[in-house]
Amino acid sequence: MKNVISIRDLSREEILHLLDQGEKIEKGELKPDHSETVMSIVFFESSTRTRFSFETAMKRMNGKVITMSGTKGTSVDKGESLGDTLKTVANYSDIMVVRSGLEGTQRYASEIIPIPVINAGDGSNQHPTQCLLDLYSIRKTQGKLDNLSIAVVGDLRYGRAVHSLVYGLSHFSPKLHLISPDFLKIPEYIKTDLEDKNIEIHEGSDLSEVINKVDIMYVTRIQKERFSDLDAYERVKNCYVVSKSMFGDVKSNFKLLHPLPRVDEISTDVDDTKYAYYFQQAKNGVYIRQAIISELLGGSK
Amino acid sequence: MKNVISIRDLSREEILHLLDQGEKIEKGELKPDHSETVMSIVFFESSTRTRFSFETAMKRMNGKVITMSGTKGTSVDKGESLGDTLKTVANYSDIMVVRSGLEGTQRYASEIIPIPVINAGDGSNQHPTQCLLDLYSIRKTQGKLDNLSIAVVGDLRYGRAVHSLVYGLSHFSPKLHLISPDFLKIPEYIKTDLEDKNIEIHEGSDLSEVINKVDIMYVTRIQKERFSDLDAYERVKNCYVVSKSMFGDVKSNFKLLHPLPRVDEISTDVDDTKYAYYFQQAKNGVYIRQAIISELLGGSK
Amino acid sequence: MKNVISIRDLSREEILHLLDQGEKIEKGELKPDHSETVMSIVFFESSTRTRFSFETAMKRMNGKVITMSGTKGTSVDKGESLGDTLKTVANYSDIMVVRSGLEGTQRYASEIIPIPVINAGDGSNQHPTQCLLDLYSIRKTQGKLDNLSIAVVGDLRYGRAVHSLVYGLSHFSPKLHLISPDFLKIPEYIKTDLEDKNIEIHEGSDLSEVINKVDIMYVTRIQKERFSDLDAYERVKNCYVVSKSMFGDVKSNFKLLHPLPRVDEISTDVDDTKYAYYFQQAKNGVYIRQAIISELLGGSK
Repeated sequence: MKNVISIRDLSREEILHLLDQGEKIEKGELKPDHSETVMSIVFFESSTRTRFSFETAMKRMNGKVITMSGTKGTSVDKGESLGDTLKTVANYSDIMVVRSGLEGTQRYASEIIPIPVINAGDGSNQHPTQCLLDLYSIRKTQGKLDNLSIAVVGDLRYGRAVHSLVYGLSHFSPKLHLISPDFLKIPEYIKTDLEDKNIEIHEGSDLSEVINKVDIMYVTRIQKERFSDLDAYERVKNCYVVSKSMFGDVKSNFKLLHPLPRVDEISTDVDDTKYAYYFQQAKNGVYIRQAIISELLGGSK
Repeated sequence: MKNVISIRDLSREEILHLLDQGEKIEKGELKPDHSETVMSIVFFESSTRTRFSFETAMKRMNGKVITMSGTKGTSVDKGESLGDTLKTVANYSDIMVVRSGLEGTQRYASEIIPIPVINAGDGSNQHPTQCLLDLYSIRKTQGKLDNLSIAVVGDLRYGRAVHSLVYGLSHFSPKLHLISPDFLKIPEYIKTDLEDKNIEIHEGSDLSEVINKVDIMYVTRIQKERFSDLDAYERVKNCYVVSKSMFGDVKSNFKLLHPLPRVDEISTDVDDTKYAYYFQQAKNGVYIRQAIISELLGGSK
Repeated sequence: MKNVISIRDLSREEILHLLDQGEKIEKGELKPDHSETVMSIVFFESSTRTRFSFETAMKRMNGKVITMSGTKGTSVDKGESLGDTLKTVANYSDIMVVRSGLEGTQRYASEIIPIPVINAGDGSNQHPTQCLLDLYSIRKTQGKLDNLSIAVVGDLRYGRAVHSLVYGLSHFSPKLHLISPDFLKIPEYIKTDLEDKNIEIHEGSDLSEVINKVDIMYVTRIQKERFSDLDAYERVKNCYVVSKSMFGDVKSNFKLLHPLPRVDEISTDVDDTKYAYYFQQAKNGVYIRQAIISELLGGSK
């Protein structure tokens, strides 16, 4: 494994290996040390949460971090090309984490720079480390990954976390319930890919029909920043609101996941129920990112 | 001590313990090591000075720091609630420093997250670590804290450093001279609290009447950013300007303190006099913050 | 050596000593450790590239870094004087790197604060660490510094990297070709200084006349941000574009340098030729900055 650009590049075995390593790190059985390593965080789209997760992962392994968040006041502002920016920062660091609004930025980076590249989100395309922490969270709460029944709810069209998740799950024979307004259905090319892998898919728009059947419900935010048409956003923004009152007949192993941040799609009255797992899910991100960074730096033996 | 939210939560003994620990750190007798610890700095109001002081304190103890300064480009911008932001960042870190324009933010944080919270300023309310460094500076210059005569000058209405200071001093039987324009007098609830503790208070508006009587004069900036009415600001902004020419008859132990930044309220001709102590005061902030962080992380034995 | 403010303050011997130390660091023969040291980066003009280079240099030596980039949300915004800001940050740190749009800021800093100051660029004036990495790169590619033929191309009027470079080179008997549009010729005072040192200077505006004669061609960006008159900028911005097709008859040891970022002044088709050295040049910046920081902290023995 040289880079982590898309979850589609990873085999079932590679995914399971990373989850296993993350688990050892969480349990304290593995304590990677990267005190000789500088990681660059190059976020053309600013983000606090994902930045904090990567910085924490690296710093907990004694690694050094240099961070650019947003392009204001950078050489990009002075007219520098993307390629030059990436090549220059690669000179300073041993591994690079890139977030961008432009799809494909990280693939391009991996082709022009000699150090490992981690994709921390490219537009509406992929977010593979989010996917790995989601798989880690699912396995941890369910004790397994294979043959689970999973509902994915919300913005399936623009949500890169969702796009990565369904590809990640496709190695584990899930039964997928894809719940969204018509306007925000999962892209056709992804659906075709899943069907080619014989994944059982049910599309619908009513989450009450599936909530009692599934092991995991993965809710996503309708992302205002992905819409060019604000009218369209206003029509769908509150189409799903999960509240405590819906949990009367859910399975006992049922867990609610969300990549965060949430706006209104999960009521706060859910937070104290045993079904809420989204804050722990965020915490799991640090372990899995420690595993990913360590693997790319030569293995976390 | 689980959190440092308001100086009012700390007893005389707790305050003196922190000052003693800070003194040992300054003298090199105590060298806390927090190399396994990640501190998050969550500043909803941006600030360089206070951020630098906390970062330096933590880094001098080999601790790791993750920093958010201002809310631009953060999940707050995406509509996330304050509670969710705090809970998520708490997942990444072992101790959190919070600054906010909203009074009570840190108290709320301490109730919903499991890690220690330090208040680095909440609106016009409290700034307890500033108070502790002020008390440290007063004790260091005067050799004691009890029974001092102290003038507090400037914006006593909105100044959170002042609000914290007078509560901190209230354990040490001070004689307080509260000097301000009428419009910026100390809030009535604080005055009542001080009177309930039998603190001797003299309110006035003329600093020349008190300068020769006091051991400490604590001058504050009129904070433009706290005024909604700019006319009112313009009328009072230069009401006090301390200059070297005023020091003819001051006490020999007299020291001038200021929480910084200053604008025009202390002339630069004062800087080279033996009475100026404000830059050393800022430096003391690092020692006392090391002591506070260490105490909250389980004691700096 | 107490500060690095202008390359003009450094003797030939001091320059060569720093280059030698940088070389030992690059080769791994010297591994300075500054784990007890806090470096402050105070950039009144924001910059990612130079900031990353200094941060990486310090972090690779296990030093701690506190960073201010841009003045938004800082005490400068609250009306604090430059001197107060510098004095306060000096309290927190052991060495300070300053970038500023205002010429002379670092000299002033060095006079009022007790810790070493490194100039990371002051307006159109000086950029001495850039000069040192340029000299390092020239020596590394040519095997020597003395008696080289060097073309400097582009904005010689406002370019602080150029201003520093020619002074740095003046210790090494270069033959200088100064190529620029008339409007952007090197300032008269610098030319006079060079002539006083008996440096051979040829001014011109046509780079094709010199490209086959020189060992080094140092190309600079026309810096839009230095122009008050945008019309003037538009007239000259694309006056020089170096492309692969120009390299037919260059010397075999010829190397092309650029302080980066570039905009259009070097075609990307040059990047893969053996003459392109600008990305490696940027990488050299880390070694030389490690050497400079170490020297100012008491020598990198």
